[in-house]
Amino acid sequence: MSATKPFPPLKNDLILRAARGEKTERAPVWVMRQAGRYLPEFRAERVENDFFKICRTPELATKVTLQPIDRYDGLLDASIIFSDILVIPQAMGMTVEMVPGKGPHFPDPLVHPSEMPAKLKEKVDVYQELQYVFDAITMTRHALDGRVPLIGFVGAPWTLMAYMIEGGGSKTLSKAKEWIFKHPKASHELLNRITDVCVEFLVGQVRAGAQMLQVFESWGGELGPHDFEQFSLPYLAQIAKRVKAALGSEAVPMTVFAKGSWYALEQLSEIGYETVSLDWTHDPVQAKALTKGRVTLQGNMDPNVLYGGDEAIVAAVERMVRGFGSTGRYIANLGHGILPTVPVEAMELFLKTVHRVGLEVAAEESKIEIASNVNIIG
Amino acid sequence: MSATKPFPPLKNDLILRAARGEKTERAPVWVMRQAGRYLPEFRAERVENDFFKICRTPELATKVTLQPIDRYDGLLDASIIFSDILVIPQAMGMTVEMVPGKGPHFPDPLVHPSEMPAKLKEKVDVYQELQYVFDAITMTRHALDGRVPLIGFVGAPWTLMAYMIEGGGSKTLSKAKEWIFKHPKASHELLNRITDVCVEFLVGQVRAGAQMLQVFESWGGELGPHDFEQFSLPYLAQIAKRVKAALGSEAVPMTVFAKGSWYALEQLSEIGYETVSLDWTHDPVQAKALTKGRVTLQGNMDPNVLYGGDEAIVAAVERMVRGFGSTGRYIANLGHGILPTVPVEAMELFLKTVHRVGLEVAAEESKIEIASNVNIIG
Repeated sequence: MSATKPFPPLKNDLILRAARGEKTERAPVWVMRQAGRYLPEFRAERVENDFFKICRTPELATKVTLQPIDRYDGLLDASIIFSDILVIPQAMGMTVEMVPGKGPHFPDPLVHPSEMPAKLKEKVDVYQELQYVFDAITMTRHALDGRVPLIGFVGAPWTLMAYMIEGGGSKTLSKAKEWIFKHPKASHELLNRITDVCVEFLVGQVRAGAQMLQVFESWGGELGPHDFEQFSLPYLAQIAKRVKAALGSEAVPMTVFAKGSWYALEQLSEIGYETVSLDWTHDPVQAKALTKGRVTLQGNMDPNVLYGGDEAIVAAVERMVRGFGSTGRYIANLGHGILPTVPVEAMELFLKTVHRVGLEVAAEESKIEIASNVNIIG
Repeated sequence: MSATKPFPPLKNDLILRAARGEKTERAPVWVMRQAGRYLPEFRAERVENDFFKICRTPELATKVTLQPIDRYDGLLDASIIFSDILVIPQAMGMTVEMVPGKGPHFPDPLVHPSEMPAKLKEKVDVYQELQYVFDAITMTRHALDGRVPLIGFVGAPWTLMAYMIEGGGSKTLSKAKEWIFKHPKASHELLNRITDVCVEFLVGQVRAGAQMLQVFESWGGELGPHDFEQFSLPYLAQIAKRVKAALGSEAVPMTVFAKGSWYALEQLSEIGYETVSLDWTHDPVQAKALTKGRVTLQGNMDPNVLYGGDEAIVAAVERMVRGFGSTGRYIANLGHGILPTVPVEAMELFLKTVHRVGLEVAAEESKIEIASNVNIIG
């Protein structure tokens, strides 16, 4: 599989147009973790294959990336390559296992800054260590046959640093925070090293076929505003800038999702990302007002609403799509990844309702526009 | 032990004045969970006695409530009765165990609304079920000998409901959210029943000797703004209003702490609480600007800074106290409970630095005031 064979023409560019700030006929929609455990066909695959084996085998990654696109045929406006944010720590030399029912586990985390030379490779050859992701992207792009764009992604430096130190999930991130408070210089060194890999990896993903990129700062909100400004924001800004500079005219729209970092919404809308993804603690109307059309907003229904039955789902989608508006600078999504035990029918209703309400709102918006044009002419 | 014997006169009313919006000579300070596992003398007590046994035995609750007051003699401006937010679910008929290293566990949680009649008492006699807390408060108030005021508290209805349904801690609160989305009517019924107990319990705590009250909505931030407005805010408002009405001229200052509910700060400052407690995602200067002096603000250093060494602690306290100001409407605290493995010396440095910086800021503020008075006269 090679990136030199031309890719099939794209038939649905709704999400790319929304990200670039162009008018759309309705809000595009996709869902974080849309290829994942809530799908029976994904669970069947996981019976046979370990999580990271799927990531590392382009045929398997392609297969599961396409599962939601096939199941929800015509309802999803983007695909996202099946992979994990922790492939970067792996590429940097660390061991990460996925423990069923518990999540990621680093058997040998970074305990002290003095361990960095021994535990991290001095030079990471992204094209060797992560070639399997590039291959999966190229293969998936062909298999998609232009149905929808393919999104590539990375975990952001602070979030990856926190995993590498905590060794897995954590309620308080006390160990990672001890680093930033007690060893700020070493922390910045580590963040810089991760940033370098993020940049090269994202550039490679686009060259392999990714048509859009997302940076996940999943633990952004564990930092207060002062510490976020020191240990997260500069690296997020660097990534957008350097990836765009490296890609030049090949550059693709980029999205940043700093979960929980509500206080940084304005800053996040000014560091070079086309789209800012929001968790469900943001009110759509207020988030729009705060970002003043500078960026496209993505999100943000509480993923738990998908447990709430049809009435709750429809009501929440109505509020969300009507709040964000449907035809400009908006991409519908959840406020975080879809949860593993959500019924597939709930996901379908979510997608169908986004389409229905999106078209309704678009029709209303176009009427308002016609009316205001008439006013201007009159 | 009875509440009829007069209590010793209060020697330090700094926190009560700060809560009432009076000028203080420096910002008062206390710390959430200041009586707890980070103290070796508390851990020694826990070797002998189960967590809830300490809560239920007034002599033991008094003893551990006073531990930080004695250890940090003269540095703490308030004590908080040693108890737990889950004594209310217990009073309502549910079993709660404290599993060492894991936290609270309900062996028989509320799975479906239809179980409410069987699992919850129809009428809760607060004065019978929770008399042990009232006794502990009265005994502690005497033992404090007026050194500092004594704070009573409850968990807020949404947080308690979530525990009763989840059966313990949870990353997503999916079960509790399924209730509010799928069974909103039953959820409101449950919230109302919890609210009734909260109100009576808080009133009883004041009658037993509590001089200030705090309501902990620890899981507020799991709700988006729309759901918070339905399932949390009205009950928080009811509690403040009903407790004050019942107490009349005996009413004491009340604090609300809705962790993570950043979007509701303005609303929280308008529902009858004297003080709003903030987590560490709030910038002090912005929080002050948003609440415009309507309430006293409490908080908000990231508890993890206490792992960061002396330099980090001093820098964070400087930023916090200078940001909030020291002489008006401010109570210094952490942005959440102190963590169980924090060194006792770090806590001491935190308290001493709040005192030092608070006095420095107070001196600067009084100079500015004198200067501006001179200007007015001139």
